[in-house]
Amino acid sequence: MIAEIIGVGTELLLGQIANTNAQRLSAALAGIGVDVFYHTAVGDNLARMTEVIGRAAGRSDVVIITGGLGPTPDDITRDAVSAALAVPLVRREDLARDLRAFFERRGRTMPETNLRQTDLPEGAVAIAPEGTAPGFYLVTGGALVIALPGVPWEMLQMLDKVVLPLLRTHSGEVTISREVLVAGLGESHTHDRIADLVAAQTNPTIAYLAGYGLVRVRITAKSADEDDALALIAPLEAEIRERLGRHAVLGRGRTLAEVLGNLLRTRSATVAVAESLTGGLLGAALTEEAGASDYFAGAAVAYATEAKGSVLGVDAGLLADPGPVSEEVAGQMAEGAARLFGADLGLATTGVAGPAEQNGRPVGTIFVAASWRGVKEARHVRGYGDRDSMRGIAVNSALDLGRLTVQANP
Amino acid sequence: MIAEIIGVGTELLLGQIANTNAQRLSAALAGIGVDVFYHTAVGDNLARMTEVIGRAAGRSDVVIITGGLGPTPDDITRDAVSAALAVPLVRREDLARDLRAFFERRGRTMPETNLRQTDLPEGAVAIAPEGTAPGFYLVTGGALVIALPGVPWEMLQMLDKVVLPLLRTHSGEVTISREVLVAGLGESHTHDRIADLVAAQTNPTIAYLAGYGLVRVRITAKSADEDDALALIAPLEAEIRERLGRHAVLGRGRTLAEVLGNLLRTRSATVAVAESLTGGLLGAALTEEAGASDYFAGAAVAYATEAKGSVLGVDAGLLADPGPVSEEVAGQMAEGAARLFGADLGLATTGVAGPAEQNGRPVGTIFVAASWRGVKEARHVRGYGDRDSMRGIAVNSALDLGRLTVQANP
Repeated sequence: MIAEIIGVGTELLLGQIANTNAQRLSAALAGIGVDVFYHTAVGDNLARMTEVIGRAAGRSDVVIITGGLGPTPDDITRDAVSAALAVPLVRREDLARDLRAFFERRGRTMPETNLRQTDLPEGAVAIAPEGTAPGFYLVTGGALVIALPGVPWEMLQMLDKVVLPLLRTHSGEVTISREVLVAGLGESHTHDRIADLVAAQTNPTIAYLAGYGLVRVRITAKSADEDDALALIAPLEAEIRERLGRHAVLGRGRTLAEVLGNLLRTRSATVAVAESLTGGLLGAALTEEAGASDYFAGAAVAYATEAKGSVLGVDAGLLADPGPVSEEVAGQMAEGAARLFGADLGLATTGVAGPAEQNGRPVGTIFVAASWRGVKEARHVRGYGDRDSMRGIAVNSALDLGRLTVQANP
Repeated sequence: MIAEIIGVGTELLLGQIANTNAQRLSAALAGIGVDVFYHTAVGDNLARMTEVIGRAAGRSDVVIITGGLGPTPDDITRDAVSAALAVPLVRREDLARDLRAFFERRGRTMPETNLRQTDLPEGAVAIAPEGTAPGFYLVTGGALVIALPGVPWEMLQMLDKVVLPLLRTHSGEVTISREVLVAGLGESHTHDRIADLVAAQTNPTIAYLAGYGLVRVRITAKSADEDDALALIAPLEAEIRERLGRHAVLGRGRTLAEVLGNLLRTRSATVAVAESLTGGLLGAALTEEAGASDYFAGAAVAYATEAKGSVLGVDAGLLADPGPVSEEVAGQMAEGAARLFGADLGLATTGVAGPAEQNGRPVGTIFVAASWRGVKEARHVRGYGDRDSMRGIAVNSALDLGRLTVQANP
């Protein structure tokens, strides 16, 4: 089953936002074995939208459109679907009643123009609104065309409640993926170790994604049922893990922060962090998922050198020599964070994110450290790319050192 | 001049990454008056890539392709451009020599297959590699076709050094935009105040972008030269600012964090932050730009309730009642941050990001506070959307309260 995704909205073409809806839809479709062949973004222009939707419905089994379902004159996805598929729009009185009731409950007057939102292509099935915009889907000439709002969380609600169940019944096979997170090795060295497996791939397939010092090796199998797909993946995953050794991250979680969080939860342990160049990103990563209060105690961002002494208790002598960007200072920062927040594990980052060198250390010099119940580890990491990239690499390196230190010590 | 952007790579269609290259290119093109009509993403498949590139070259003046320029067999953008435009590939000996030298300098052996990277369409102009992949551009049948690497920072370097200067000479007019940041008002209330101006727009045009409690009103003018475009924008911007009052953010900066940072720099003042639900994101926002050490002292993320007492000095009585999610606790957290790091301004966030309620407070309850040289301000904010959205709203609300407090007090 071949799908494609169309994002509607001039804000995409002006670069004001990234098309994260296309990314989230693609990831969800990949998870249920639907191949996505194209993403398209197009502005709020009837002629171009009609052309793009018509071509998509002609070449794909499933077309998912996001955006353009609001009440303003700009919102013309309904009109474009109608024109592209040659199906007239009809006012849906049931939806109109619901929309009026929505405004009444809030004590607000509904502009009559908002009723545009209740005009759907004839024969379409409505998807209940999460805000005020109903979604819809219809089957026409062999293609299933689905229209969802552009607001990400409204789109995601409809995806989970309606679209994925609908597509599962359309698709005859399942696709299952497992990811191996690879830390501290880099993409080319990862590839060197498993190149023969990649060259021989058919089903399962193997793909990489690298970024911020982390590589994801994704193993994907298609089969008639889930157990069978998992049985195809298991031996290949084991082989890959063996070749990558300690660089293949063990544990549950999509991200290093989740893996470390789950590890700490099973040990009934807590973590606190001390940050410099990452400015708060390490704490933010550890609190991205709900439930982080089970293991996350707190963070101290000691950006100014003197705060590393006054808040985290780093020796003044070490701050003078070898200086704030050093293994020794990283180690004391990690210890200081654990002490300050009364945590079992302390993690720290210090380094030079650029664009200029600092304290005689070149851009890209990064030290991370972990302090775990009396054991102290530190690591020198080489950052690359821009400031964002350097900060991301520092976060991942600290998380990786944390999970290795906890896993190696009781 | 009409442009379109094509992103190449199966990782886009699997949803492993968002197409941020398309966003960044679009924003850069909008800045020099080039209209982007389409984004397309397509996998590493020769037939589909050839079709997409051919259609783009037939309907647009400029086609920018990102990705697929690497050395592996997957990387077939060169082949697809050659097929789509019916121009043969030729080995470029000058580039091949440079590539060999690149490997020699690093003491590594170059696999001969890497020379694929030096095969360019006949007549193409090479763009010097930022990593190992050269980019290129060529004019054919009226369209300018440009191919850049998919690695974001390599792409951005080539964009700045080669592509933008090239496009400026192609385009006869300039487009200038000015943004008014609107904080604490919301999109619909913003629209209510300026709806008549939006309805009357021609040149300049007015567009909104809303997210995380912030609205950007973008005013864009086209003209023959920059001064003339700025003269078109000035009276409209003044009118919009007057109608939006204190919600229209005054000061230099693309983001609230930059505006606050620049404001503090002119006052020779520093800021420290105390975070709870934002977990480090407020500090990360304030340190996103280089040079933040001029004004940013540090952050304490007191995620656990007891850390709010032990690290930030919040009264135990207040933590018990009214509890950690309250105006009073936010105020003491802001004071505590300023004291801990010896800063002039303290900012704080506390709240319930969800998914479950906490201490009897519903999801979306957020308090932010600012403490500035003896003046304390706090604000209750209603969050909406998912966990990410709540955290983003808390960050922007704290930054806005910070800049208002500093601007209102000497």
